[in-house]
Amino acid sequence: MTYCVGLLLDAGIVLLSDTRTNAGLDNISTYRKMFLFEEPGDRAIAIMTAGSLSVTQTTLARLQDAIDDPDAGPEKSIMHCQTMLDVAQLVGDTLARTTQEISQKMTAMSQTASASLIVAGQRKGGEMRMFLVYKEGNFIEATADTPFLQIGEHKYGKPILDRVIEPGTSLVEAQKAALLSMDSTLRSNLSVGMPLDLTVIERDRMAVSVSRRIEPDDETFHKMSLAWSEALRDAFGKIEI
Amino acid sequence: MTYCVGLLLDAGIVLLSDTRTNAGLDNISTYRKMFLFEEPGDRAIAIMTAGSLSVTQTTLARLQDAIDDPDAGPEKSIMHCQTMLDVAQLVGDTLARTTQEISQKMTAMSQTASASLIVAGQRKGGEMRMFLVYKEGNFIEATADTPFLQIGEHKYGKPILDRVIEPGTSLVEAQKAALLSMDSTLRSNLSVGMPLDLTVIERDRMAVSVSRRIEPDDETFHKMSLAWSEALRDAFGKIEI
Repeated sequence: MTYCVGLLLDAGIVLLSDTRTNAGLDNISTYRKMFLFEEPGDRAIAIMTAGSLSVTQTTLARLQDAIDDPDAGPEKSIMHCQTMLDVAQLVGDTLARTTQEISQKMTAMSQTASASLIVAGQRKGGEMRMFLVYKEGNFIEATADTPFLQIGEHKYGKPILDRVIEPGTSLVEAQKAALLSMDSTLRSNLSVGMPLDLTVIERDRMAVSVSRRIEPDDETFHKMSLAWSEALRDAFGKIEI
Repeated sequence: MTYCVGLLLDAGIVLLSDTRTNAGLDNISTYRKMFLFEEPGDRAIAIMTAGSLSVTQTTLARLQDAIDDPDAGPEKSIMHCQTMLDVAQLVGDTLARTTQEISQKMTAMSQTASASLIVAGQRKGGEMRMFLVYKEGNFIEATADTPFLQIGEHKYGKPILDRVIEPGTSLVEAQKAALLSMDSTLRSNLSVGMPLDLTVIERDRMAVSVSRRIEPDDETFHKMSLAWSEALRDAFGKIEI
């Protein structure tokens, strides 16, 4: 399984993904689920993936092929799209086509394959936007009322986000919330695993400000995780019933 | 949907269930999901239900019919079973039979109906035991390594339990943890709703010590919920990144 979370705030975008992939229960691997596409000053786009690895890898490979193709225009390459909405549309179309092709092969074997994506970023002259793209290629968008989107194992880490995230949350606080939301998920579900990929895209920079891999032995994350456990138990101890 | 949680501790058993039931998205009702069967000094048994209301109601009605039947022996009435294991077996068989019958009707309409149960309690001369009974009638049991069982929307409320519940947890702390676990679920998922039913069965009492309905306007619960939100935000503020 997977857990990816994206926060769309006044100050920018914060994205966090895990890297655990499994084919069955006993075939566990590490695969990147965070992909960045950047032309500083013009656009910064991040895509996070959840679902069948064959679907997400082929989708991303097709998007990358189009970017590398010098003849590809805005209808093919996300680096040439005019707006983030066009990017979401193009990514959705590519995902839907890939899902359909792979599903046809799978159906013959009575199996299914599907994936969902979070697409976030900003294009020069446009607003920051964040979309959750479904396997059918359609998508929903984060708004001030719902400033975060999640894919994969989203339930364990939702309560903390419900409580602390609002559009005015600072980027530092938002990174903390994303990491603690991930920490709860890691603890409660073994199918989500380290290392993690953290990305921050500040408003109107049209560039990736932070792109960091957090390894399993990362001391800061480990300390934060312990401090959070202690703080939770402390808080728990103080509640009167 | 539903959220029910049961904690099996050295000091006793704590059980908490919500009451929201929905047929489709717009037909929402309140139904009890906590059922108590008690002969003080001899046995105290609690059953919590999740899943299709037609399945859980029929299953409980059949169990109750057998209890009311003066001719029913230990192979039919949970009030005559020798051990909690026999109770779990009888409840499982009743659930499986009911599920099969209702499923046959549903399959003709290309629909499905299923349910799962938590069965917990103590019989004189035996240990306290708690079981999660699956729709097929088979079951798993809570142990010292896994002292809590959940049915329904279990993910939102699991992180807090993972952090604070161990066999040595006191009954008061355990009630608090169950209520906070429910509070997180209520906040993050609208399909789980008040009022709540709380039950405590103390060790070796073979009787229900606490059986309380917590109404939506319950001031203690409301205060606890607010205090927990504040404590979480405080704790969050203190974490360094």
